[in-house]
Amino acid sequence: MYRSHTCGELRADHINKEVALSGWVQKTRNKGFMIWVDLRDRYGMTQLIFDEERTSSEMMEKAAQLGREFVIQVTGKVIERESKNPQLATGDIEILVSEFKILNASLTPPFTIENETDGGEELRMKYRYLDIRRNPVKENLMFRHKVGMKVRNYLSEEGFIEVETPYLIKSTPEGARDFVVPSRMNEGQFYALPQSPQTFKQLLMVGGMDKYFQIVKCFRDEDLRADRQPEFTQIDCEMAFVEQEDILNIFEGLTRHLLKEIKGVEIGDFPRMTYADAMKKYGNDKPDIRFGMEFAELNDLAKNKGFNVFDQQELIVGIAVPGAASYTRKQIDKLIEWVKRPQVGANGMVWAKYNDDGTLKSSVDKFYSEEDLQAWAKETGANPGDLILVMSGDANSTRAQLSALRMHLATELGLRNAKEFAPLWVVDFPLLEWDEDTNRYHAMHHPFTSPKPEDIALLATEPGKVRANAYDLVMNGNEIGGGSIRIHDKETQAMMFDYLGFTPEEAKAQFGFLMDAFQFGAPPHGGIAFGFDRLVSILGGHETIRDYIAFPKNNSGRDIMIDAPSKLDNAQLGELHLKVTE
Amino acid sequence: MYRSHTCGELRADHINKEVALSGWVQKTRNKGFMIWVDLRDRYGMTQLIFDEERTSSEMMEKAAQLGREFVIQVTGKVIERESKNPQLATGDIEILVSEFKILNASLTPPFTIENETDGGEELRMKYRYLDIRRNPVKENLMFRHKVGMKVRNYLSEEGFIEVETPYLIKSTPEGARDFVVPSRMNEGQFYALPQSPQTFKQLLMVGGMDKYFQIVKCFRDEDLRADRQPEFTQIDCEMAFVEQEDILNIFEGLTRHLLKEIKGVEIGDFPRMTYADAMKKYGNDKPDIRFGMEFAELNDLAKNKGFNVFDQQELIVGIAVPGAASYTRKQIDKLIEWVKRPQVGANGMVWAKYNDDGTLKSSVDKFYSEEDLQAWAKETGANPGDLILVMSGDANSTRAQLSALRMHLATELGLRNAKEFAPLWVVDFPLLEWDEDTNRYHAMHHPFTSPKPEDIALLATEPGKVRANAYDLVMNGNEIGGGSIRIHDKETQAMMFDYLGFTPEEAKAQFGFLMDAFQFGAPPHGGIAFGFDRLVSILGGHETIRDYIAFPKNNSGRDIMIDAPSKLDNAQLGELHLKVTE
Repeated sequence: MYRSHTCGELRADHINKEVALSGWVQKTRNKGFMIWVDLRDRYGMTQLIFDEERTSSEMMEKAAQLGREFVIQVTGKVIERESKNPQLATGDIEILVSEFKILNASLTPPFTIENETDGGEELRMKYRYLDIRRNPVKENLMFRHKVGMKVRNYLSEEGFIEVETPYLIKSTPEGARDFVVPSRMNEGQFYALPQSPQTFKQLLMVGGMDKYFQIVKCFRDEDLRADRQPEFTQIDCEMAFVEQEDILNIFEGLTRHLLKEIKGVEIGDFPRMTYADAMKKYGNDKPDIRFGMEFAELNDLAKNKGFNVFDQQELIVGIAVPGAASYTRKQIDKLIEWVKRPQVGANGMVWAKYNDDGTLKSSVDKFYSEEDLQAWAKETGANPGDLILVMSGDANSTRAQLSALRMHLATELGLRNAKEFAPLWVVDFPLLEWDEDTNRYHAMHHPFTSPKPEDIALLATEPGKVRANAYDLVMNGNEIGGGSIRIHDKETQAMMFDYLGFTPEEAKAQFGFLMDAFQFGAPPHGGIAFGFDRLVSILGGHETIRDYIAFPKNNSGRDIMIDAPSKLDNAQLGELHLKVTE
Repeated sequence: MYRSHTCGELRADHINKEVALSGWVQKTRNKGFMIWVDLRDRYGMTQLIFDEERTSSEMMEKAAQLGREFVIQVTGKVIERESKNPQLATGDIEILVSEFKILNASLTPPFTIENETDGGEELRMKYRYLDIRRNPVKENLMFRHKVGMKVRNYLSEEGFIEVETPYLIKSTPEGARDFVVPSRMNEGQFYALPQSPQTFKQLLMVGGMDKYFQIVKCFRDEDLRADRQPEFTQIDCEMAFVEQEDILNIFEGLTRHLLKEIKGVEIGDFPRMTYADAMKKYGNDKPDIRFGMEFAELNDLAKNKGFNVFDQQELIVGIAVPGAASYTRKQIDKLIEWVKRPQVGANGMVWAKYNDDGTLKSSVDKFYSEEDLQAWAKETGANPGDLILVMSGDANSTRAQLSALRMHLATELGLRNAKEFAPLWVVDFPLLEWDEDTNRYHAMHHPFTSPKPEDIALLATEPGKVRANAYDLVMNGNEIGGGSIRIHDKETQAMMFDYLGFTPEEAKAQFGFLMDAFQFGAPPHGGIAFGFDRLVSILGGHETIRDYIAFPKNNSGRDIMIDAPSKLDNAQLGELHLKVTE
């Protein structure tokens, strides 16, 4: 037996007990006549003491040689600590070591194993097993486990059944790129890894499972943006005999449960907003509603006042930045440079300071009177002390640009409080979106999403205006879940594939099994999927999902710890009937 | 809202209530003036009644057209049933339908959706979504979920943390064949899908996670034998600062918990048996100990009696088959034919009947006296009425052949009672096994298994005799779990790779990250993995894992429902820098 207790367990109650502990040497302090060692394991830290009056000289010598991250096992007596450490759960006691054994030595770690480390990200990823020893990383992984357990137990108690769907499935051209897996036994053929278990969960509904969930890995071979991973985890759910309202209720319940159980935060009914409103008010389908700065459209107030720039534009839209009237000209110029960056893409920006004394001063004083600017202030909801920023251009781009600015400013002004949770349902997403590259409509959610019955007639005339029974759960400016009511009859599904540019043959080859299934009594059904990595990181109060993934990949999709992917030898390629081309 | 209640919920208490139900038409009975419909959902079955005295004629007509597996929604009043059905939870009531709506029609299903169906296996796999509607399949999936939840909650309460390890890892030549995944972003390179998260869980131990588990998909590209799947699920566990005894205790606890909670079976301490004993007594490293028929070695009794066949052999070994002395000559000949099949491979078999009157009659009476045979009976533990069967040859093959016969007979005699659970730890597995094909030793468990310290000296002289700290949990003749104490220092690991025929360069290229990790304070650790599919099927009382997998693949690794794997188009291959060769 390596230990009788963990390093986080001993208290004053244990004084005079003989105990055995095992763990890592966090730190040693050697005063010659006394040596203290902080011994660490997953559960905490305990101080060991070697003291020349009570410890043999051989043992003193051996203890003096202990280095950071050595793994040792000690036996000794729990004694009262002279100078107690109230910061430490075990701070009342220490262990007077009577025997100890080095279980494994350690080289000097490439970065410090402390809450704040001196290691850069690449280095920490290469030695991820050492990074995991640090409390923040370890606690993130334990937090993830806790959230997973809460989700599973909640859904299970609500009657959901976790069903494992296959990982080796079929490649389909719709959506993102698949990762594929060559089959040795079926020469020249490939499986694909699932981008989500979408069709399988629908088939489980056809199969009468009624309520399904799964916490499951999904895969997308996309060029990786920051904070995207080629493999990610989804809480995948589906229900039969439900309308949108039923689904929103159940998963609002789950989210409320998690916020309460994990964060101690009680939240009432989640607000709902249509996609159209979200775009109008926040320029974004996943608005962060923890702070104001709602968009105010100023076309009526700002056009035809002699300012040519505005007169030509489709949309003029502004926000009031709280307390920013005191910005210097330099600060404002920096903001203007910020919105002109290629990532944002604006041409410029108009500003108006609403001074504390109630006067207004703007970059367009030549064209707009004090009254004009007062009207802007009223429309944007600005108060004295606020800065009004106004952008213009075609509606879609301008909204996106102002949304980027709004988020940037909120971060700068510290308005994105990680301890505050502001969930929001965004509903009534468009069914289709126009894709300039391919010159056709794509499914905004996926091709299995049902159009709103009242909008079906528009499909023939204005497909872009058809709304779907699709919804996203947004929290603090992040999409954490999204879903829809699905199509459940063959005719509508075939029509949808037709709109999306599939020939009937293609539709049959790729999704024939699903359309077949719809002919044998498919129930109405719908579902949702939560991004588990994202959900955990938001609940945990961090912004990057990588902090909550045990072994993440870098931005080139590489695992730099194990050095994957790597080349195969020719024998292995030959067995797979494959050749690598240049 | 599609329903106020489920089809399994209504009782006499609900009489006179107005309810809404949704589900599938299981069956209709039409007597003209009355029509009964059995409505089914996941939760049960409820009888609907349409009655010309109380139902409009239009509705009667519509109801008359309902076919099997139509999906309908009904509203009506719960009324007392005239002839109650005590077999059915809802058998006291029926629903007098006031309104109903066909939500979806159904073609005639290709097989009957009944507990016993007329559909063959291929057909049911093609229409798996219909097969899942059948109670036995649906209940198996729900049972699997229940076992999974129990496992997770038990391990979580024992302090284990579920950590998700990556699916896109690195291909290694050791062990079974990997499935690989070409990387588009890293041209000409491949990920591999994990055969198990072995190295990652060890790294988590190096990382101080202390207790890890995961219910996780694993992948092996092997030629599929019956009841093997290319993707399968594992309960994967690892612990730090443990000896073999600690691991056996924890996972014996888990197994006992499952047996109690799920099967209501209380089992005391699990018996333990060394690998050597298991081979000697049962010819098998996963003996079914629910019944006797232990092997008796008869070399001393049967050699040098003039029977040439035996005199030349390494091993003569017999079993007593209870109550089989009454077998006819024809039955015995059939058994002899059975062991001569190529799958078993024996040359023949000697038999001796221990008659009820105490006399003995054998196929080798020419060579053995009644006293000789009495000695055989004593050694095999035969009682009057039993049949003694004796095989001979080289030790390994003969044991394997007799083991096959023993299992065959036990099945035939009904001794393998699916309701009885006989767990067994098999311990002290050999570290290495000789492979005739490659003419070298292979790791019996895997290359990370530690040799028993007392046997290390044998590595240089008799590697085949070195025992490992490796153990299997066997239940009812199936291996349901296996694990080992791992190597945790670089030197031993390097030595092991050397014994397994790796050059130092190969070892470094493939497992350098692990050996590096061992240099930074790796704790002693060990673990176990349970085959979750197998565990569930044994607890469920079925023999085939396919019954407990939602969407299994067939013996060629194909999903015949979705028709995967399939060909990729050239554009997709081109992006992956791949070409299919002939």
